[in-house]
Amino acid sequence: MNRNKVVLAYSGGLDTSVILKWLEVEHNLDVIAVCVDVGQEEDFFAVKHKALATGASKVYVIDVKEEFVTDYIYPTLKASAIYENDYLLGTSFARPLIAKKLVEIAEKEGAVAIAHGATGKGNDQVRFEATIKALNPSLKIIAPWREWNLKSREDCIDYAKKYNIPIPVTKEKIYSRDQNLWHISHEGGNLEDPWNEHDNDMYLMTVKPEEAPNKPTYVEIDFEYGVPVAIDSVKYSPVDLICKLNDLGGANGIGIIDIVENRLVGMKSRGVYETPGGTILFEAHNSLEKLVLDRAVLNFKKMVSEKYAQLVYDGLWFTQLKEALDKFVDSTQKVVTGTVKMKLYKGTCKTVATKSPYSLYNEAFVTFGEDDVYNQKDAEGFINLFTLPLTIGAMMKKNKNKKEKQII
Amino acid sequence: MNRNKVVLAYSGGLDTSVILKWLEVEHNLDVIAVCVDVGQEEDFFAVKHKALATGASKVYVIDVKEEFVTDYIYPTLKASAIYENDYLLGTSFARPLIAKKLVEIAEKEGAVAIAHGATGKGNDQVRFEATIKALNPSLKIIAPWREWNLKSREDCIDYAKKYNIPIPVTKEKIYSRDQNLWHISHEGGNLEDPWNEHDNDMYLMTVKPEEAPNKPTYVEIDFEYGVPVAIDSVKYSPVDLICKLNDLGGANGIGIIDIVENRLVGMKSRGVYETPGGTILFEAHNSLEKLVLDRAVLNFKKMVSEKYAQLVYDGLWFTQLKEALDKFVDSTQKVVTGTVKMKLYKGTCKTVATKSPYSLYNEAFVTFGEDDVYNQKDAEGFINLFTLPLTIGAMMKKNKNKKEKQII
Amino acid sequence: MNRNKVVLAYSGGLDTSVILKWLEVEHNLDVIAVCVDVGQEEDFFAVKHKALATGASKVYVIDVKEEFVTDYIYPTLKASAIYENDYLLGTSFARPLIAKKLVEIAEKEGAVAIAHGATGKGNDQVRFEATIKALNPSLKIIAPWREWNLKSREDCIDYAKKYNIPIPVTKEKIYSRDQNLWHISHEGGNLEDPWNEHDNDMYLMTVKPEEAPNKPTYVEIDFEYGVPVAIDSVKYSPVDLICKLNDLGGANGIGIIDIVENRLVGMKSRGVYETPGGTILFEAHNSLEKLVLDRAVLNFKKMVSEKYAQLVYDGLWFTQLKEALDKFVDSTQKVVTGTVKMKLYKGTCKTVATKSPYSLYNEAFVTFGEDDVYNQKDAEGFINLFTLPLTIGAMMKKNKNKKEKQII
Amino acid sequence: MNRNKVVLAYSGGLDTSVILKWLEVEHNLDVIAVCVDVGQEEDFFAVKHKALATGASKVYVIDVKEEFVTDYIYPTLKASAIYENDYLLGTSFARPLIAKKLVEIAEKEGAVAIAHGATGKGNDQVRFEATIKALNPSLKIIAPWREWNLKSREDCIDYAKKYNIPIPVTKEKIYSRDQNLWHISHEGGNLEDPWNEHDNDMYLMTVKPEEAPNKPTYVEIDFEYGVPVAIDSVKYSPVDLICKLNDLGGANGIGIIDIVENRLVGMKSRGVYETPGGTILFEAHNSLEKLVLDRAVLNFKKMVSEKYAQLVYDGLWFTQLKEALDKFVDSTQKVVTGTVKMKLYKGTCKTVATKSPYSLYNEAFVTFGEDDVYNQKDAEGFINLFTLPLTIGAMMKKNKNKKEKQII
Repeated sequence: MNRNKVVLAYSGGLDTSVILKWLEVEHNLDVIAVCVDVGQEEDFFAVKHKALATGASKVYVIDVKEEFVTDYIYPTLKASAIYENDYLLGTSFARPLIAKKLVEIAEKEGAVAIAHGATGKGNDQVRFEATIKALNPSLKIIAPWREWNLKSREDCIDYAKKYNIPIPVTKEKIYSRDQNLWHISHEGGNLEDPWNEHDNDMYLMTVKPEEAPNKPTYVEIDFEYGVPVAIDSVKYSPVDLICKLNDLGGANGIGIIDIVENRLVGMKSRGVYETPGGTILFEAHNSLEKLVLDRAVLNFKKMVSEKYAQLVYDGLWFTQLKEALDKFVDSTQKVVTGTVKMKLYKGTCKTVATKSPYSLYNEAFVTFGEDDVYNQKDAEGFINLFTLPLTIGAMMKKNKNKKEKQII
Repeated sequence: MNRNKVVLAYSGGLDTSVILKWLEVEHNLDVIAVCVDVGQEEDFFAVKHKALATGASKVYVIDVKEEFVTDYIYPTLKASAIYENDYLLGTSFARPLIAKKLVEIAEKEGAVAIAHGATGKGNDQVRFEATIKALNPSLKIIAPWREWNLKSREDCIDYAKKYNIPIPVTKEKIYSRDQNLWHISHEGGNLEDPWNEHDNDMYLMTVKPEEAPNKPTYVEIDFEYGVPVAIDSVKYSPVDLICKLNDLGGANGIGIIDIVENRLVGMKSRGVYETPGGTILFEAHNSLEKLVLDRAVLNFKKMVSEKYAQLVYDGLWFTQLKEALDKFVDSTQKVVTGTVKMKLYKGTCKTVATKSPYSLYNEAFVTFGEDDVYNQKDAEGFINLFTLPLTIGAMMKKNKNKKEKQII
Repeated sequence: MNRNKVVLAYSGGLDTSVILKWLEVEHNLDVIAVCVDVGQEEDFFAVKHKALATGASKVYVIDVKEEFVTDYIYPTLKASAIYENDYLLGTSFARPLIAKKLVEIAEKEGAVAIAHGATGKGNDQVRFEATIKALNPSLKIIAPWREWNLKSREDCIDYAKKYNIPIPVTKEKIYSRDQNLWHISHEGGNLEDPWNEHDNDMYLMTVKPEEAPNKPTYVEIDFEYGVPVAIDSVKYSPVDLICKLNDLGGANGIGIIDIVENRLVGMKSRGVYETPGGTILFEAHNSLEKLVLDRAVLNFKKMVSEKYAQLVYDGLWFTQLKEALDKFVDSTQKVVTGTVKMKLYKGTCKTVATKSPYSLYNEAFVTFGEDDVYNQKDAEGFINLFTLPLTIGAMMKKNKNKKEKQII
Repeated sequence: MNRNKVVLAYSGGLDTSVILKWLEVEHNLDVIAVCVDVGQEEDFFAVKHKALATGASKVYVIDVKEEFVTDYIYPTLKASAIYENDYLLGTSFARPLIAKKLVEIAEKEGAVAIAHGATGKGNDQVRFEATIKALNPSLKIIAPWREWNLKSREDCIDYAKKYNIPIPVTKEKIYSRDQNLWHISHEGGNLEDPWNEHDNDMYLMTVKPEEAPNKPTYVEIDFEYGVPVAIDSVKYSPVDLICKLNDLGGANGIGIIDIVENRLVGMKSRGVYETPGGTILFEAHNSLEKLVLDRAVLNFKKMVSEKYAQLVYDGLWFTQLKEALDKFVDSTQKVVTGTVKMKLYKGTCKTVATKSPYSLYNEAFVTFGEDDVYNQKDAEGFINLFTLPLTIGAMMKKNKNKKEKQII
């Protein structure tokens, strides 16, 4: 008797281990555990064995780090997409990639459903499920946290004990975390009161700014068409480049934010994020764009960035709109080639110099004094026409006042 | 024989002193020198005497610092208006205020014209003239730098010598600067090549981050309706509050930016700006808004902020649109009341805690585990409808492919 | 024994009559039937008696037509809010008003819940419930169509028969309709296939364009601050003004649209709407704005209009953002005073002339030939600076090509 | 002795004939007259001979109608770009094409300058010159109307008589007109007072709606990827398709607008435009997009349309931003394939039916009653989360009021 198959996004932690067993027991399904390596620190060998020990019929461990960088991180970087001014979307854009892999495996394995361990309160459930529906709406989705009657970590531990699922002997988790190549997020614990300062012992990718070196670190990043290709003139593969910048940024206390954000599901939450390399890249890319994009493009691109960030945050990666925005962005990046010199120092990351073959900065126009490229007399005509609506408005008011006085 | 009068925006520097004489000699006008105190460091007594010595028929020195803070800085802060991601508009919003004062004095004195010392390459000429045209389009505008044939500092010195105008015995100016209560800008010199790192000896309001204290400084700022009213629970007048924050920010190396920006007149320029107190205020205000404004407001307000920044940068302060945007902004600020705790450290300025009676952060909704305010099962319905367009799109594609295959 | 009370939005039709009984029987509640008169054609006396006959413990019939026009229609008109280019929001903005009245009565009566007859597929359920939650989130909401197991009109008829609820002896309804002072909508029937042309016998407020008079009708509308106050120089109360324009528009076949729209709940639907008076008003208001608002305001207001329309369509009337947008809009309307002359003819409604004391149209500037207000030579300077980014871009490309050739 | 060459945009009318001579006489240049056929009604043979007779050293008559349709009209149609709600940009997008041809000929002929007959008050000067600067900024631009001292038609006639330039024996021109394949514009005359109704004897491409047939005309248009390809199932070349629709629209009084618009140069002007075929196409395209684009795309595309329209109106065709917007638009048009059925009747042009293989309209979701694709119960969860910010806001207010009362 063949049971139907479900594909489970499996991490090896307590929650997804319990889910694995629960899917088998309560839903009577063969569970295919899929562990997607997006750069989180994990012993994938151990994870694999744990899945099998817990009852998985099959386990996949797949390394998608390069795809993650080139197809998810870089498009978002090119789009300058930042959610609510601050959040570099580290968790957001990992979810559609993971979900895409789940769908691919489900289709390959002939599974009827996909299960994930995201709770009913967060954004991740939406990101997983939006992707699944966009790619294969016939797959059933099982979200145990919305379905079962386990309500807490303690309930999970009881369930695990009942089924002899090994329980990690870690100290009690203070924070809920999500890590990948790009960032780590921290939520929960005493962060839940926004009036608490966060405890900077929590940092995992970054040193405390106060403990960073007393001398600045300089780094030069080369971009080609909006994408970073070299650090200090040395070419790196996409994954290595992010790792290298994480090291540099992390050592200098770069990329820590502590924000209250609006979840898609309608509530505010508070989180601390570490994105050391990403923060450097966004700052550098932003500076280079200022050199090579004209005012009109920069201005409109901001609206695109906002929308892009919202789509990514909301899990709407595989959509008509996201695809069209990418086309806009790619067109603008044709000139985003050049070099940015950054200074990293105790939590600050600042561009100190930029250059590009596509630079629209033209010293001849700016220099005070005589030149033959710019006729200062032109400015008078420009101002007269640029401000003509103001002049006409002022004349209208004056005439109106005059007429009204005559009537009185 | 009565000569016509011109009102001149006078600073006491070489340029406007030469202009003062030039207006008298070449245009045969009585020159009323007006020195507007927006917080720049200046010996206004000496300036007044210099103006008279240079031939002014009358001199005004007017202190508008409080009006500057309450009517120009605070509306821009409430609007979260930042030009091209970085520039806090320090010079931009001082210009309409100065020009407004020039118009008022011109009307009071019966002057026929207003003169200013802005060059034909910059934004300031537009900001001055847009304001004059909006407030009194019948006033003639004289912009000597677009009109005369002096082309350099050397030409000005020669002209000054010819008319016995005292020439400041300062060392040669490296940078072109503009200072007020909010900021100081630096342009020119070796900044004109964007590949040069700026020399941090230039700082005037700020210490170098490397020389800032090794211990963080904490500061709490109270806001009422979007406007800061107290620091560490001590109430300050608007001007004193900015000064206090400038001291705190300056001592910790806060608020230095180095950017390539797009001037309204069509070229890119590069500048270094110091805005120590302003940077703290924008960061704090931004954090408080995240606590009290909902997602829809924050999202739309970003478009308002962008437009507002562009209007301010372009000198379009006294316009229909600016007024309407202020109404939008003020409506949003009705709940921007609360306290923000900031940590200042070697060039970084970060919010560490926020609270507000209008806080929309609700711990009950966020907490993991059971609650009676949020039903996790609701999420399924939400996701199903939120992603329905994706589902329908995927179904359409599938059906289309099926039909096309049948045809083949 | 006191039963809890529920307030029901009651229309007198089959559905809400069945709901009335069902609430009593299944939920064991006292039902207070509330019939809100927003201008629909109805015998409210009969409706009242039917409610009582069906078992209502109390019936309210309240006339909110004036509030509907002044507080819902006019703000939307001032905002120029049109959903997806075409839909004048007739149903959308009636719902929050009706829901507000339900909440007021629920609070006055001490009811614990509000019930409505909107289905689980449409926008109206969201509009009702969003308003209730915004005004009093402690009120329970009962939406029978999402809860019971009646699935069709036939099921309702059976239920009605069982409880001796009088069934309207009308011919079978072809279309699902919603009517008020502003419009009538038609959905369902053969409209459900977008490739069917709609049958123009369906029109209730409008004659078929082909049967409209062969001579055009002219009408002049006076606006004050964005709001219509007179027709052909005769002042009308808000409700009478809409009725008068409905008559004029209806007689000339004005205001019929047939569209496929995106519902908030994720699907497309197709509807025919008649909005005769409203179409005239939007056209007239739009034309007047073109005369008195400057380019920058018109341009930004379009974004406001879009967002406003979306909020209204989505039922987000009582929100922070809607309130802030109203402030923006009201500021712009301070000059929207004047007269618009319209020509109505067989389905077309066109502005033929406009005038206003705030007109920014200034013939002196436009006239070909000599003038002293506009110096054509200014245009050269304007163009040179306006297009400077293009010039600099072209120079950059040329230099880049030259350098690359030298390298080769 | 070789004279330098200038390329002149030549129409054969009085103005450009005078300019031709004036360039030769006053600037001592060889004039290459270029007459670009964008579909205006003109005897190009006569024009050519007139140019030579007036002194042109060479004459080009070039037919760019197909390029006009495919590279200028269709991209704008796909972008749904309409200026200030109404204007279909007929003159605007012809100018960059004409200017591009002038640049190509100038480069081929080795000319040093380009001259055009646009006045200093209009938009066309900007559109011509922006294109020239974008394509070849080293070419000098001569705009006689901004330079010479001829101030009126009478001055031109005098100049023409002096040089024996044949003066067209037409009756005095009432309106200033611009015609091409897409439209004709009318300005001046009694249109200069916006309170005058325009005289509908002016129409050249369209019959008066009152004189259009008493029976509606139906037409079906097929689109492929956003571009019209067939009328009533008959394929047409781009130019023939526009002509055919102009005939159909013109015969039914379609596409007349009478508007006050904001010129780029800061003033308002009033014009009447006839765009019979274009109006049909925009309406049809809009309807088809509603069937195949999802809500998010339609919504964001509106912002793109606005910006696109502004760029085209302002002559910024050859820019970074325009190119990037085109990429966005093209991506959205991948599904804009299908058929639209239109009804034309006495000035109205309405979509009555649409179909597409990419239709996102799905009857199964919309139908009232049972279905298995949409679970009405999902709506409750959707609404609860969609309106959660409203609920939380209302709870915050209630708690705040409670606390404040306790304090009192």
